[in-house]
Amino acid sequence: MELIVLKFGGTSVADAGRIQRAARRAINYKQQGFNVVMVVSAMGKTTDKLIALAQEITDDPPRRELDMLLTTGEQVSISLMAMAINAAGHEAISLTGGQVGLITDAVHTKARIQNIHADRINEELGRGRIVIVAGFQGVDESGEITTLGRGASDTTAVALAAVLKANRCEIYTDVDGIYTTDPRIVSEARKIDMISYDEMLELASLGAGVMHSRAIEFGKKYGVDIHVRSSFTDTLGTIITREVEKMEHIVVSGAAVKKDLVQFVLPGLPNHPGVVAGIFAKLANHVVIVDDIIQTVTDGGTASTSFTVEYSDLSECKVVVEEIRKEYNLKEVICTDPVAKVSVVGVGMRSHTGVALKMFQALADAKVNINAITTSEIKISCIIDPADADKALREVHAAFELDKEK
Amino acid sequence: MELIVLKFGGTSVADAGRIQRAARRAINYKQQGFNVVMVVSAMGKTTDKLIALAQEITDDPPRRELDMLLTTGEQVSISLMAMAINAAGHEAISLTGGQVGLITDAVHTKARIQNIHADRINEELGRGRIVIVAGFQGVDESGEITTLGRGASDTTAVALAAVLKANRCEIYTDVDGIYTTDPRIVSEARKIDMISYDEMLELASLGAGVMHSRAIEFGKKYGVDIHVRSSFTDTLGTIITREVEKMEHIVVSGAAVKKDLVQFVLPGLPNHPGVVAGIFAKLANHVVIVDDIIQTVTDGGTASTSFTVEYSDLSECKVVVEEIRKEYNLKEVICTDPVAKVSVVGVGMRSHTGVALKMFQALADAKVNINAITTSEIKISCIIDPADADKALREVHAAFELDKEK
Repeated sequence: MELIVLKFGGTSVADAGRIQRAARRAINYKQQGFNVVMVVSAMGKTTDKLIALAQEITDDPPRRELDMLLTTGEQVSISLMAMAINAAGHEAISLTGGQVGLITDAVHTKARIQNIHADRINEELGRGRIVIVAGFQGVDESGEITTLGRGASDTTAVALAAVLKANRCEIYTDVDGIYTTDPRIVSEARKIDMISYDEMLELASLGAGVMHSRAIEFGKKYGVDIHVRSSFTDTLGTIITREVEKMEHIVVSGAAVKKDLVQFVLPGLPNHPGVVAGIFAKLANHVVIVDDIIQTVTDGGTASTSFTVEYSDLSECKVVVEEIRKEYNLKEVICTDPVAKVSVVGVGMRSHTGVALKMFQALADAKVNINAITTSEIKISCIIDPADADKALREVHAAFELDKEK
Repeated sequence: MELIVLKFGGTSVADAGRIQRAARRAINYKQQGFNVVMVVSAMGKTTDKLIALAQEITDDPPRRELDMLLTTGEQVSISLMAMAINAAGHEAISLTGGQVGLITDAVHTKARIQNIHADRINEELGRGRIVIVAGFQGVDESGEITTLGRGASDTTAVALAAVLKANRCEIYTDVDGIYTTDPRIVSEARKIDMISYDEMLELASLGAGVMHSRAIEFGKKYGVDIHVRSSFTDTLGTIITREVEKMEHIVVSGAAVKKDLVQFVLPGLPNHPGVVAGIFAKLANHVVIVDDIIQTVTDGGTASTSFTVEYSDLSECKVVVEEIRKEYNLKEVICTDPVAKVSVVGVGMRSHTGVALKMFQALADAKVNINAITTSEIKISCIIDPADADKALREVHAAFELDKEK
């Protein structure tokens, strides 16, 4: 029997009517002969409301307690979803992260999945039930409740699809797929039918908000095709899948802009083995997620290392950077707050030349100054002034003709 | 080190300010040298709101899923309480029913505590932490989430006090103690300083809403003194404790009225051994909680059995009663809906005569008709028309001079 994993985001379960609609989709698949596993997020803005509630008490809640609080959101959704399916005459059972046996490490609010025991799910599927799993949450080895980070219900879904060897994994959301860029900024943005894991990973890490990065990593690692689609229509969305040959003809698949970044520059670091490793170990210990790292050697023989972090990690990062400044006796540390990053992504870059030039030229024509540049095999990013961000994205999108069907 | 268990009801944790106030009470005890365990209910009207949410989906949710839904209410409260205590500079940790190891049977929405593993709590207390336990909830042996019935956070608190051999157990609520009767109906109602478990059990089962019956049973069984008091003042409340000699001088301690009852009368049952047992086994199997049972033998040699149930069990009860009617080929079954019950309670009844007469006379003087009478060693109850309920309570309260200090 084929198995399908369906994931419904917050907007797709925002009220009783939408929950019933999602339930109907699951029942349809069940009636088509699929075994069905659903992964459900918290209803609508529930997570934000819970965070606001915590902030009425304290600005700095213990992360363990924040996880205890936030996981209630998904627990509400799964129980209501099970009720909706039962009320429609089909058997369903809801399971928390702990009950599913989704085991994570103990890093509260940013935990990583370590293992999933599929026994309970398989047992319930064997009884003919639709199984509804709480997204976003797990437990560590000692039974403490953990969460996987905002948006991580996607990760729960894809990880379950991998472990259960699902034939399909569908992510239902409030947009109808992945776009060449953010349609709210660039009205010419176009829906992509198919995109490779690597491109999607780059786009996700660049601020294309549709999918959680770790979900795509799981998809890539275990070969799970991920179908991102709208919960409000029946049209096909975007399939995230392994790279196929025809993708190489598309030089650039998408463009993205990420705002709310902060750039730190540490000039005058000794250019010795281990220095950089030491710095980023410190940041990792404070669970600061570093976005981009750029290092060049200056004429004095010292290294100038710069990196960007998300604005939300700013206060934690400043503490670490001050430690580093003292340790290496640096004269100054530059903190540019905020900066933006505009990027283009495409697997075709590997086999095409002139991509970087085309991007720099587009930005130059638009009189956007480039403060820093980083590239990967399939990505080019430029750090720019946030005031130029939207304009830059539009220019780059047009330069690579992303609005035209390839 | 002395151990105190503090329980805070929904109104005592209804918003951030009240949570902080409750946190402050716990911290005060901690600073006085107590080990502190808190049991917390869901905030304000949360449970009602969750039930309303379920009812938007279905009138008849599976009880397992209702438990999955409702337990989130307490999980929110405990995490916020832990945050409040941490923010005030003291260590605290929140624990769900499952994490505490509060094991129940598998009867969803009405589960009974079977065992509590105190290890985790003792371990956390040993670290100097205030331990915050989610009231009302547990898990069955296979890890399914259960609830103990509305108002059962009291039971969680007293059961914990028993298992942990606590020196004190305080129940914080929105009234300042147990009253001789409901002050909303009888303005002369007076706060009682001390009351026996048995009297309190009778009053609770008669609709005196302050304490959950099973909590008092636990208190009695394990000899836990329960101090019911207001979370908004520092005045002493009512201590529920073992019977002491001076209580015997008080013939009647309290009066109560219970509305929203339904009375079933089954006339013409064969008067054979096992018949009544069979009937109430059927009701128990459907988890209908029977209030009072009255049986008399009629002149034809058959038995007339009547019983009352809570209005909320009416539809379930009707199904069972119809089965019984068919099985015994009864001509008719009488269902009186609704009825009310007015009662007086007091351990002094055991050694005093004329108590029943005084009650019947008071009702007669008020022209209240008595449909049925049941008595226990320390209680007299009369089934009456709900239209007379408040008047009857006032008359009985006055007849036994419950407004006067004894």
